[in-house]
Amino acid sequence: MSKYGIKERPDQTQQLLSWHGGKIYEAAQRWGVSPDEVLDFSANINPLGPPQSVASAIEDACRSARIRSYPDDQLFVDALVSKHQLTPDEIVVGSGTASLMFAVMHALVPKKVLLLEPAFAEYARSCDAVNAEITWWPLTEENGFMPDFARLLSVIKERQFDLVIINSPHNPTGNLYPRASLLSLVTASEEQGTVVVLDEAFIDYATEESLIELAPTKHQLIVLRSLTKFYSMPGLRVGYAICNASMASKVRRQIDPWSISMVALEAAHAALKDDDFIAESLSSNATARDEFMTALRDIGLLVFPSHANFLLVKLPKGSGTELQHWLDSERILIRRCDSFLGLGDAFIRLAVRRSSENMRLVSLVKLWLNESGV
Amino acid sequence: MSKYGIKERPDQTQQLLSWHGGKIYEAAQRWGVSPDEVLDFSANINPLGPPQSVASAIEDACRSARIRSYPDDQLFVDALVSKHQLTPDEIVVGSGTASLMFAVMHALVPKKVLLLEPAFAEYARSCDAVNAEITWWPLTEENGFMPDFARLLSVIKERQFDLVIINSPHNPTGNLYPRASLLSLVTASEEQGTVVVLDEAFIDYATEESLIELAPTKHQLIVLRSLTKFYSMPGLRVGYAICNASMASKVRRQIDPWSISMVALEAAHAALKDDDFIAESLSSNATARDEFMTALRDIGLLVFPSHANFLLVKLPKGSGTELQHWLDSERILIRRCDSFLGLGDAFIRLAVRRSSENMRLVSLVKLWLNESGV
Repeated sequence: MSKYGIKERPDQTQQLLSWHGGKIYEAAQRWGVSPDEVLDFSANINPLGPPQSVASAIEDACRSARIRSYPDDQLFVDALVSKHQLTPDEIVVGSGTASLMFAVMHALVPKKVLLLEPAFAEYARSCDAVNAEITWWPLTEENGFMPDFARLLSVIKERQFDLVIINSPHNPTGNLYPRASLLSLVTASEEQGTVVVLDEAFIDYATEESLIELAPTKHQLIVLRSLTKFYSMPGLRVGYAICNASMASKVRRQIDPWSISMVALEAAHAALKDDDFIAESLSSNATARDEFMTALRDIGLLVFPSHANFLLVKLPKGSGTELQHWLDSERILIRRCDSFLGLGDAFIRLAVRRSSENMRLVSLVKLWLNESGV
Repeated sequence: MSKYGIKERPDQTQQLLSWHGGKIYEAAQRWGVSPDEVLDFSANINPLGPPQSVASAIEDACRSARIRSYPDDQLFVDALVSKHQLTPDEIVVGSGTASLMFAVMHALVPKKVLLLEPAFAEYARSCDAVNAEITWWPLTEENGFMPDFARLLSVIKERQFDLVIINSPHNPTGNLYPRASLLSLVTASEEQGTVVVLDEAFIDYATEESLIELAPTKHQLIVLRSLTKFYSMPGLRVGYAICNASMASKVRRQIDPWSISMVALEAAHAALKDDDFIAESLSSNATARDEFMTALRDIGLLVFPSHANFLLVKLPKGSGTELQHWLDSERILIRRCDSFLGLGDAFIRLAVRRSSENMRLVSLVKLWLNESGV
């Protein structure tokens, strides 16, 4: 480890595979049940959604003749213009954050990328797609997985990175980075000609720290947003990038003109207008998350504070692999963390679901800890 | 023009814009009507679809809780394995042919590409995305827009292209290239290390000339398929590429893991099983196309023979721009061809729709020819 704490990234082939939660089809097939019978704590999806407004938009879109028409993103872009107070040329729509991440990589073809890990697997995969060299900034348990921003700035100033990828709230740790720290990082990066990609896929749970409205005023900042998690529609695919018009044009050049389905566009358009759902989701998530965290701690688990709708948890004994195996008979999925660089099989990530579901899982984990041979 | 007929491609910025048919939302807004009231001859969509099987699959998918799950392409890939007799690692699924075209470009990053044009605008756009130099093989009216394959082979053997893009049946000309000619082109290309992308987006209308089942046995052949046109679901996005496993792995590396929505996957899965719809569509299209062609010729238009579900038409006087303007009051869209390299505003492209709709358009064009000042 260098004086800055950055590390040679090990050549772990598994880091370049798409390890993700939410594989309920695969689990349902393995268990011989319908996907609807799987209780999924492995994907970070808002348990309240999709809102009725979105469900209705989806049903309308599917019933109408619009399946027969090419998607047109104009209404959705107009809605984003109003929501974020920007111009259409500062918006790039794409089929989810992961897809936009690839488009950014294809647009910039960075040689040197700084990644704070453990992190979402598609950051490393999209770097690999353009043969970028990844420098690993390890987020460590002893620091509660928070980066030291002063040291991070020093590294960015001294090493010539083409791109830094930041995720706030951070998946899988749940940490939220202060707006002031992010801004100092953006400023330092701009001075070095380093582009910052800020993935705000979970920022709906902490909008006060968002940089989205500043992004068009910056030369080198790209903010990514997803409608997948908060509006509970990962089965559709829709996200967007906000940046200055020149950068947006570069990114858009890498995407085909119909990258989002018409159903996803209509659903997204409806989602943006649903203020009630936002308020209800934030309140419900905060309550359920606190209750879940307390209950998990009460049975002896180490739970890291979270600003999103999931919890990073360390098991006192046994492993995520063993626990998942044990939960198979309950048709419950959790997110093992052995595929995350810098975590290990002692960690699991749990989505915050409805209270009764969360409490059911707590009881089961308690039973497993007490009764299994681990 | 060189001895082979290839040409310096003019730097026409418009060729790099996404000019396409099917902009019914834009037209509906301009005309102050609902998109459902637009009669669209500008997009090459099967007028019989989507089949009931697909419509039901879409409604089921939208109603179910599966919007809340990440898309999983396993069932669709399994269905493709059965249909085409290949292995899963020889298949890359993507959100439509255009999207797969970009993924191929990102995977291969070709320096020199040979394009037969006029052609689908996304070929040039995807070349531009990776800064590939395009050599233009003009398809000319005097040859009925058919390429001379012997000369094409000579050019491929003498010039070091990294990639050749072929489209059969060809959009917008409607020409179908014989399997034997395509195979000789693939063989010559392989000897030069040139990759061939064969876009079979309209091959459902002429499956006997497809190379899809041979693709995995070739080193350098990528066949693209779309479910958009034949199954009338451009509003969803789904297509696939077939090639050998090593090439497929390269292309897949450029795509995020959830590039197709769950709704599109379920629709596509249903579509592949619907043999009745195929038979009905082929028969209906052949009859309607012949009738449409004859009627258009009877009023003095030059109609090029087509093996797909659209017709390339040359107006005896006036222009596509003028005709489109005249048709505005009828809420009818046609595809002007002034954006196609090597065509011009005397050409239009018309989708083959239902007989009564086609005949209505013929009457209107006749009226325009007789009564307008052109």
